[in-house]
Formats: sequence, structure tokens, C-alpha cells
Amino acid sequence: MYAVIMAGGKGARFWPRSRNRLPKHLLDIVSEQTIIQETIARIAPLVPPEKTLIVTGAGHAGELMRQLPEIPQANILIEPVGRNTAPCIGLAAVAIRKAVGDDVMIVLPSDHKIADEPTFCRILQAAAGTAECGNHLVTVGIEPTGPETGYGYIEKGERRMTVAGEDVFAVQSIREKPNREQARALLNQGGFFWNSGMFIWKASAVLTAMAAYLPDIHAGLLEIEAALGTADQDEVIARIYGGFRSISIDYGIMEKAANTLLVPGDFGWSDVGSWDALWEVSPRDDQGNAVRSGRGLIAIDSRNNLVYSPQKLVSLVGVEDVIVVETEDALLICRRGESQAVKQVVDTLEEQGRQDLL
Amino acid sequence: MYAVIMAGGKGARFWPRSRNRLPKHLLDIVSEQTIIQETIARIAPLVPPEKTLIVTGAGHAGELMRQLPEIPQANILIEPVGRNTAPCIGLAAVAIRKAVGDDVMIVLPSDHKIADEPTFCRILQAAAGTAECGNHLVTVGIEPTGPETGYGYIEKGERRMTVAGEDVFAVQSIREKPNREQARALLNQGGFFWNSGMFIWKASAVLTAMAAYLPDIHAGLLEIEAALGTADQDEVIARIYGGFRSISIDYGIMEKAANTLLVPGDFGWSDVGSWDALWEVSPRDDQGNAVRSGRGLIAIDSRNNLVYSPQKLVSLVGVEDVIVVETEDALLICRRGESQAVKQVVDTLEEQGRQDLL
Repeated sequence: MYAVIMAGGKGARFWPRSRNRLPKHLLDIVSEQTIIQETIARIAPLVPPEKTLIVTGAGHAGELMRQLPEIPQANILIEPVGRNTAPCIGLAAVAIRKAVGDDVMIVLPSDHKIADEPTFCRILQAAAGTAECGNHLVTVGIEPTGPETGYGYIEKGERRMTVAGEDVFAVQSIREKPNREQARALLNQGGFFWNSGMFIWKASAVLTAMAAYLPDIHAGLLEIEAALGTADQDEVIARIYGGFRSISIDYGIMEKAANTLLVPGDFGWSDVGSWDALWEVSPRDDQGNAVRSGRGLIAIDSRNNLVYSPQKLVSLVGVEDVIVVETEDALLICRRGESQAVKQVVDTLEEQGRQDLL
Repeated sequence: MYAVIMAGGKGARFWPRSRNRLPKHLLDIVSEQTIIQETIARIAPLVPPEKTLIVTGAGHAGELMRQLPEIPQANILIEPVGRNTAPCIGLAAVAIRKAVGDDVMIVLPSDHKIADEPTFCRILQAAAGTAECGNHLVTVGIEPTGPETGYGYIEKGERRMTVAGEDVFAVQSIREKPNREQARALLNQGGFFWNSGMFIWKASAVLTAMAAYLPDIHAGLLEIEAALGTADQDEVIARIYGGFRSISIDYGIMEKAANTLLVPGDFGWSDVGSWDALWEVSPRDDQGNAVRSGRGLIAIDSRNNLVYSPQKLVSLVGVEDVIVVETEDALLICRRGESQAVKQVVDTLEEQGRQDLL
């Protein structure tokens, strides 16, 4: 069984910590480990490093190898450009087919947080068992805890089987990110799960689906597959991959295929998509303050703040609901609940050509 | 005419910028110059550097000389310990008497901000003229702009004279810092001025008053005067000054003497006593943000903040009424209006023995 970690993200929403050269998954933002180190450690009980592939951009491969010395260098697949998840997964699938003929691949985003790792592994094992016994395209749906608007939703259909004690359902429908009202309606209706971006299938199964629903990309992937391991490999990947359109696996395959299945999971999942989401999943003191400081904390009458200041003593006086992030060259001060606007700061820096701060 | 600058302050309220080794008056907190550099430059039209004395603690003399190379080293009078303003002024008075017999001395705090310097000089000249023609103890009272509770108040009595175009009044009463209600009542009643801590008198006049109202301190000052310029000077000052009680000139002399006079002044004065007061006197952008940043500012929907971050780009997102101050080893985040509690942070650091941060 293979693990395929999709590590193409930029993570502008964690500016000023995330930068072009250092996207979210390479940051120690949730714990002392970086997010991708946690992701790899989490899957390790199921898949050894030799069978763990990471798909990433050329600019991040060096740092990634530095953070993950246990992963063989040949397992780092370089995307010459980002083309969303469908080409990324296709690249990994042909690499697996070339290496071992066929095998189950567990496809995981590189930058999520999971609180209950034993349950996570149990659910993935059930999903892998499901994938193994057919050409199913299996995804994990997260039991929603509220009407979140930041996630896509998957509607479960009828129960199809039980694998390793877990019920497996047909996928009835897939919904793009809803607005608040729509999200409330989905929760009231019941049977909807958050789209976790985790997929489990045989390499052959996803490539068959690509041939059917993304034939242009499938044709390109065959060319790449033929070149893998030859002297032309890098040149072919650069040429073919650059010509791919940008398309997600959800839109390109999952919304169209008939053989999709859903395994529900409830293991404290978050995609940690913003500073606000980070506050939600961070350990907090009695006053609700999540503070990482190099030299201690003195808090007076202050509640529900998120502060990152790695070298300094942090002192809070009478402040509530503020996010403060300090790096060597930038200082962000943001009201809690407004952190989606951090993207605007990054856009402004791009307009201003402030490469030093991006 | 002499100027005597009282530079004994600690300025814990500007932590984390102010430190034991670097009190408020040695900081460039209001402008590009340090506060004491501004103070010296402001008085320079009236008093040359050779006649400007600075009374300060031993720990600050080095930095003070570095910042004020134009002041002769002999003009820096070292207090072995801080004993409030009465001994400080007495020390300067005997130094002047020893040097030139007698002269008018303009006594100024080292750490105030004055917007209208020409008017300031005009008022001081009138006060000096008043002091010169008698043994009056003259103080400058500031036209109040609101019911401030952070200042003492002086009540004017009947008009006594007009000097250089300025009316000079008897001092009717002196009030300690009032509460908000009392301050409102004083303003409604009228005839009250803020106590600026500026005093103008002949050295002989203040020493006569000390002999009458602070005879113990006066006796010690005579011993110091005898030792000035001898080999014993430092030893005598250390011994005598250490034995002085701590007492303010307001409480020790001004509240008791009968020959006190008041010159009202209105020249944009502030004692800049806190981060909140600094926001009040700082230049602010259209959105009310006073930001000093090393690499620029990006503000989105943010108002009325004070931010100091000398090395970094500052980005504000959706925040109002927050004070953020970043130094090499500390980060303060404080709600505007709460900055008097910064003193509590310093007290906590003292309790914890965090000498590195004090």
C-alpha cells in the first residue's frame, strides 16, 4: 500500500509565517513539528517511508527533504507547475504503476490536523480494504461539527458494505463550499459530510477513471509513464505537465464517476485553513489565549488571543480576540474572525512587488 | 540664567521600550530625537549648553552624555540615589551658587512634549523676568484641555503683575491628582491649571525656602556645597544624598511657601505619561493609526491603533484601539485606554526577577 502526500499548497493565509519559499505544510504552526512531519508520522503506522510518495513544487523539494530525511529522495515527485489535484494524483498513480504494477494508494493533503490518530488509521484501513476489493474510488467524509462554509460537502447514499467494522456508503452528491444558510440547511437535512480531500483507491482504478473523464490528462500521463526512469524523464514531465489544465480531482472525477464510495470518519479533523482556524485547534490557557512565545507570557485581563512571537516575552494587557504574528521582517495584527483578509495583505504585497516579504 | 533638567525618571510605563538602563527621556519615542534631546534643543534659545545642568542617576549618565555631546561633562550632576524633586533641585541650586554666586534657574522635567516652542520660550522668559525681580518661586501652569486625572492642579489667585506681556498670578492652592469627578468640578469652577513641574526662581530663593520648610535637607545641601570641587565631593554627595528623605518640591515647598507665583501657559504641553498619551500626541494617518514601522504599513479596515515595530513591515487587519510595541526581547499588546496597567507588567517582571527584561 502506498501513501501519496499532496504538498503543492502555497498557504498565503498564514502570512507572515507562510511565504512563497515556505508554505503552510512546511511550518511548525500547529505543534513543534511541521505540519508535513506530522502528516508523515501519522500515516507511518500504515505505510513505511519507502512507500510514501510526496508530490511537491520544485521550490519546496529541498526544504521538504531536509524536514523528512526518512523519505527516499526518489519518492519526492516534482511538479514543474501546480495544476491542482487531478494531475498531481495522476502523476503519483503512473509512478506507482511503473514501480509495482498496481497497488492501493492513500492520497492525503499535506497540511491538515487530526486529533485522534488511532481512529484516523482505523478509518483509512477500512477505506484501503474497500479500495482493495474492487475498482472503487473511496473518499473519507468528516462528521460535521457545525455549518462550516470553508469546506465542500459530500452527501452519503445507501450503505453498500461494511469493511473492518466501518460502514461504507455510496456517494449521493458532492457540493461545492456552501454559504452559511446552505450549510445550515445541509446539516438540518442530515447525511452530509465534510470533504476531507482524502482519497483511497488502486492506481489502476483512478487511471481508468481518468481515461474516462479526463482523457487529455490521461493521455499525457501515459507519455510521462513511458519516460519515467529514462534520461528524458524531467524534460517530458516539464513539457507534458506544463500543458495540463488545472483541475481538481473532485470536479474532474469524483463528481462524475459512478463507482465512488464514502467512509465516514470522526477523528478531530481540521484543514487549519487560517489563523482563525489555528486558534480553534490550538491549546489555550484558562483565558482562551493561545500564545507561543520564546521568553514567557504575562497576561493581564486578556482573553481569546492568538500570539506567535518566537524570540520574545509576550505581554497582553486588556486585549481580546486579537491575532498577533511576528516574524523577522513582518508583524501582523488582525482581529480574530477577520483572518481571511490576510490574503488581501499578500495580494497587496504582490501588487507592490515586495518579493522580500512574499 | 541656568537651565536645570531633572532626568531622574524611570518611565516603567513605556515598557518594553523603557528599561532600567534606558528610561523614557532617553528614548526616541515621540520623534526621531530622544525626548531629552528635544528638551535641550527647546531650551537652547534661552540658555546655552554651558549653563544647562542635568541631574540624573549614575546608571544613565553615560547614555545621556552620548546623546548630548554639547553639554559639558561637569554639567551632569549625578544623584547617587533618587530622592524625588526637592533634593534634586537643591543639589542643582548649590551647584549654581558655588559656580556663580546666584542666578535664575529654570527647572524643567526631562521628559515632556511641547508642541508650540516659541510660546514656550516666551512664557519661560516672562517667568524668568518675574523670578529675577524678587525672591518669588514661580511655576508654569498649563491651560487644561480636559478633566485629566493624571496631573496635579494649581489654582490661581489674584493677579500680581504683568511681565513681558504675561499676567502673573498668586498661587491660591495646589491640588494633588484628582479623580475624574473632582477634575470635572475643578474645570467647572475655573481658574485651575495643570501642574507642569516647571519652576523658575533664583538659586538663592529656593535655598531660602528650603532653609524654612526643609531644614534637614537644607543642612545637608550646605555640606555638599562645601565639598563641591574638592577631592571629597563624590564621597560627601553619596553620604549626604543617601540620607535625604524622598520628597517632592511641590509637597515640600510649593504647598507651604507664601511667595509662590503662577504664569499660565498654553503651548501644547503633554507629559506623555503612557502609551495612551503617546497615541494622543503622535501624528496619525487618516484612519487614526500611529504606526512606526521599519518596512512600511498595510492597513485593512483598521483604526486608532499605535504600533511600534522598527525593523518590520506592519500589517493591520480589522483591528481598532490596540497598542502593539515590539522590541528585541519583548512584545506588548495592550488595549488603548488600558496602558496604565503596563506598570503591572513591570511589577510582575520585578517579582519574577526577570532582570533581562527590566
